Amino acid sequence: MIFDPAPLGLPVSYENISTSGDIIVKHHPEGAPQATPVVIVTLNRPAKHNAFTGGMMEDFEKLFPLFDADERVKVIILTGTGRTFCAGADLDIGFNRHLGQERPAEHRDGGGRVSLAIHRCRKPTIAAMQGSAVGVGMTMTLPAAIRIGYEKGKYGFVFARRGITMEACSTFFLTRLIGHSNASYLLSTGAVFPPTVKHFGDLFNEIMPEASQVLPRALELAIEIAENVSPTASYLNRAMIWHDAGSPEMAHLIESKNIHHMFRSEDQTEGVTAFFEKRKPNFRANLDQSLPAHLPWWTEVDTGRKPKVNSSSKL
Amino acid sequence: MIFDPAPLGLPVSYENISTSGDIIVKHHPEGAPQATPVVIVTLNRPAKHNAFTGGMMEDFEKLFPLFDADERVKVIILTGTGRTFCAGADLDIGFNRHLGQERPAEHRDGGGRVSLAIHRCRKPTIAAMQGSAVGVGMTMTLPAAIRIGYEKGKYGFVFARRGITMEACSTFFLTRLIGHSNASYLLSTGAVFPPTVKHFGDLFNEIMPEASQVLPRALELAIEIAENVSPTASYLNRAMIWHDAGSPEMAHLIESKNIHHMFRSEDQTEGVTAFFEKRKPNFRANLDQSLPAHLPWWTEVDTGRKPKVNSSSKL
Amino acid sequence: MIFDPAPLGLPVSYENISTSGDIIVKHHPEGAPQATPVVIVTLNRPAKHNAFTGGMMEDFEKLFPLFDADERVKVIILTGTGRTFCAGADLDIGFNRHLGQERPAEHRDGGGRVSLAIHRCRKPTIAAMQGSAVGVGMTMTLPAAIRIGYEKGKYGFVFARRGITMEACSTFFLTRLIGHSNASYLLSTGAVFPPTVKHFGDLFNEIMPEASQVLPRALELAIEIAENVSPTASYLNRAMIWHDAGSPEMAHLIESKNIHHMFRSEDQTEGVTAFFEKRKPNFRANLDQSLPAHLPWWTEVDTGRKPKVNSSSKL
Repeated sequence: MIFDPAPLGLPVSYENISTSGDIIVKHHPEGAPQATPVVIVTLNRPAKHNAFTGGMMEDFEKLFPLFDADERVKVIILTGTGRTFCAGADLDIGFNRHLGQERPAEHRDGGGRVSLAIHRCRKPTIAAMQGSAVGVGMTMTLPAAIRIGYEKGKYGFVFARRGITMEACSTFFLTRLIGHSNASYLLSTGAVFPPTVKHFGDLFNEIMPEASQVLPRALELAIEIAENVSPTASYLNRAMIWHDAGSPEMAHLIESKNIHHMFRSEDQTEGVTAFFEKRKPNFRANLDQSLPAHLPWWTEVDTGRKPKVNSSSKL
Repeated sequence: MIFDPAPLGLPVSYENISTSGDIIVKHHPEGAPQATPVVIVTLNRPAKHNAFTGGMMEDFEKLFPLFDADERVKVIILTGTGRTFCAGADLDIGFNRHLGQERPAEHRDGGGRVSLAIHRCRKPTIAAMQGSAVGVGMTMTLPAAIRIGYEKGKYGFVFARRGITMEACSTFFLTRLIGHSNASYLLSTGAVFPPTVKHFGDLFNEIMPEASQVLPRALELAIEIAENVSPTASYLNRAMIWHDAGSPEMAHLIESKNIHHMFRSEDQTEGVTAFFEKRKPNFRANLDQSLPAHLPWWTEVDTGRKPKVNSSSKL
Repeated sequence: MIFDPAPLGLPVSYENISTSGDIIVKHHPEGAPQATPVVIVTLNRPAKHNAFTGGMMEDFEKLFPLFDADERVKVIILTGTGRTFCAGADLDIGFNRHLGQERPAEHRDGGGRVSLAIHRCRKPTIAAMQGSAVGVGMTMTLPAAIRIGYEKGKYGFVFARRGITMEACSTFFLTRLIGHSNASYLLSTGAVFPPTVKHFGDLFNEIMPEASQVLPRALELAIEIAENVSPTASYLNRAMIWHDAGSPEMAHLIESKNIHHMFRSEDQTEGVTAFFEKRKPNFRANLDQSLPAHLPWWTEVDTGRKPKVNSSSKL
C-alpha cells in the first residue's frame, strides 16, 4: 500500500518547499518521493557559512510538523552546504532585528523555536555536521537523536564571548547530553575545539576523518534505522527518556503501560516474527493510529507560541 | 559474634533456594554460609542463552529482600552460566503470556519488578556480565552498583527492532548512567555492540579481555568492598545519589542530617581508628539498627505491587 | 576607569585577609591588586597535607561573597601548597568537634557550607588540584567551573571506608558532573585512583603530566576567560545550567528572557563589535547593574544558615 499524502494535506514531494530559500530539502533516494524514507534538510547559505536566519526558523517550524505527520518519513537528516555546518546567527543581520516589534515577555528565542520543532517531531533527526559550527549552529543540533562530526571541524558554544547567553533549549539539552562538567568547561571558556577533544564528552556520536564522509554515514545510519526499527517503539522510547519519570517507581508505571500496549501490537508481532525468520522486519503501524491512548502522559509547559501542527499529530 | 539468621526468618544457606530452578544461588566462599559476605546469583538456562523467565522474576523478588535483611550479605553478584549473560526475554515463551490474566492498568512489567528488587536492596549488586546481553538482559543490570563486561561480548538495547519499548526501569536508570546522547543513539539504532564502543559511555565500569576473568574480577571487587566499606555509609551514599535532592541547598540539608548521624556512629569511630592503625576496619553496625530515624527522607511512588519485604527492612 | 572597592566595603587587596591562617590569598599578577582579574586561594597547611579545618570554612564563607561583589575579580583559582591538594578533613581534630554545641537539626555540614559559598559566587572558580585529594578535598571542588588534576595524583571519594557519608553538596554535584555509573562505582568501592582512570569520567577537565604545571595552566585558562568572556553572560549561562528548567519548553521561556535582555546589552554590542574588529572584547558591564530584573527566576531552598553577603550581591 502506497501512502497517499493528499488527505492529510501533506505534499507529495518536499523539494522546493522552503519559503525562505535559505534551506534545501531533498528526498533520499532522490527522485522517488513516494517511496523515500529519508528527507535531507540542508542549510544553504554557503557564502555566509550557512549562518542562521529567521527564514530558516520559519522553514523549520513549517517542515518538522509535516515530517511528523508524514508516515513515509522515517528519519530526517540535517546538514549544511559547503565547508561549514553553520556559523551561528548571522551577525550581519544582527541578533535583535525583531526586538522592536514585541514586548520583552513575548520574545521567543528563534533557536529555541527550531529546537522545539525538531524535538517535537516524533521521527529521529540525524545531524550530519560536515563542517564547523558555533552558537545556534551547535545548539540547534542538540535535540537530534544522533550527531556526526567532522574530525577537523571546529565546534563551540561561544555565546559568552559575544556577550550573549545560551539558547535553543540548550540549557536543557546540553547538560543531559554531555554532563555538567563538560558543559561548564565549554560555556565558561567559550572556546572552539575539534570534535575529538574530551570537553565535548559524548556529544558527537560518531566522528568522520573526512568531511565528505559525514553525510554518507548519516544516510547509512538513517537507512539502517528505517529498515530495522519500529517507528512507534522508537518514538515511545525517546519520549520516555526525554520526559523523565523522576524515580524508578514512576518509570516502572509508565513503562508498564507502554510495553503492555506494545505487547499486543502489530509491530511487536512483526518484530519477533522477523527475528525468528532472520529477515528484516516490515513495520507497518503508523504513529497516528498505533500509539497508546494514554499519550501524552506528561504535562507540557505552554510556551505561548506553539507552532501549528497537523491535526493528525498527537503532539 | 556469629549472625543467627533464624529469628529473622532468614535461611542459613541460600543454596537450593530458587523456586523456578532458572537461577542458581551460591555463597562465596563456598561451603561456609555462616561466614560468607558474598552471594552469587547465576542465571542458569544455558540451553536458552539464559533467556529471562517469569520464574526468574519471582526468584529475584523473593531473594533480594532476603539479602537486604541478612546482615551476613555485604555484596551480591549477578552473573550467567555459559557464554551468554542473558539473551533477553524468552521469545519462545513470548512477551505476553500473562496478559490475558490482568487488566491493562494492572500490568507491571516483569523486568521492572526485577530492577526494583535489586534497586531496593540496600547492599550493592555487581553485574558480572561474562557474555552477551540484550533487552532485559541489559536493563536488569542497570540498578547494579557496578557492571563488568567481556570485551568480545555483544550488548544492546534492541527493543525497537522487536517492536517493543524500554522496560525494567531503564528509562530512569539508563540516562543517568550514560547520558542522553549515548542513550538516544543506542535506542534509536537498536543495534548491538562490543562493550568498548563509545556509545555505551560509562555503562561498563570494567571490561575484561577474557570471559573467564569476569566473575573472578567481580569477586575480587566484592571482597574488597566487604572488607573495607561500611555497609551503612555505603547504603546512605547510594540512597542520596539515587534520590536526587534537586538543588545544592536541599542536598546540603539531607547530607547534614546523614553525616551528623554518622559522626556519632560506631562505624565512624571504627573507620577512623582503623585508618590510623593502618589496618582493615571491622564495621559491625548493621543496617537495621544503625540507620538514622529520618529514613526514608523521600516519598516513594506506590507501584501498587510492592514485593513483600522482611519486616526488619526499612525499605 | 579604575574600580574603587571602598564604597562597597571591599578590601583593596585580599592578601593577609585569612582569619584562620589556614589559607593564603594572592592576586595575579602579584603586586597589582587594583588591576588584577584573578585571585588565588591556596590551602596552606602543608605539614598536615592541607587537611580541611573549620577555619578554612569560615574563610571561604567570608571570601567568596567578597569575590562575588568585587567587579575586579573575574576568576578565582583554588589550589594547595606542596604535594597534596587536600587530605580531607583533619582527622587529628576529628569530625565531630562542634557536635556538642548544637542540636542535630541545626547541624550544617562544613564542606557543604564551603561548596555553597563557591557555588553562589557568580564568578567561575578553577580548581588547580596539583596533588592528591580525598574526602572534602574532592567534594569542595565539585562546584568549581573547571577542575585540573595532576596525572600521578591519587584522588578518591573514600567516605564509606571511614564510616561516614558524602557531603559538601556532592550528592547533588557529583552525579551531574560524571553520571551515576561512575559515581556509584567510586562511592561503592571508596577507593583512590589516578585522575586518568575511567571511573572519574569527565570530572577532571584537564590533567597535567607534572604537578608544577597545574597552577600555571589554571592561570592561563583564568586569563583567557578574563580577557575574552562576558562575566554577565557567563554567569547567566552557569545559572541556567545549574538551575535546571526541567523541560525544553521551560528552558525556552527562561532562555528567551535572558537572551532578550542580553540582545540590548552593552556586552552584546561590545562582543559582536570586537568579533568583527578581530580584537579582544572589553566587557565593562558589571554584575550588579547589568543582570536582568527577573533574577533569580528560581526559588532557593532555605538552609537556615546563609552566609552574610554583601548588600550589592543579588545572591
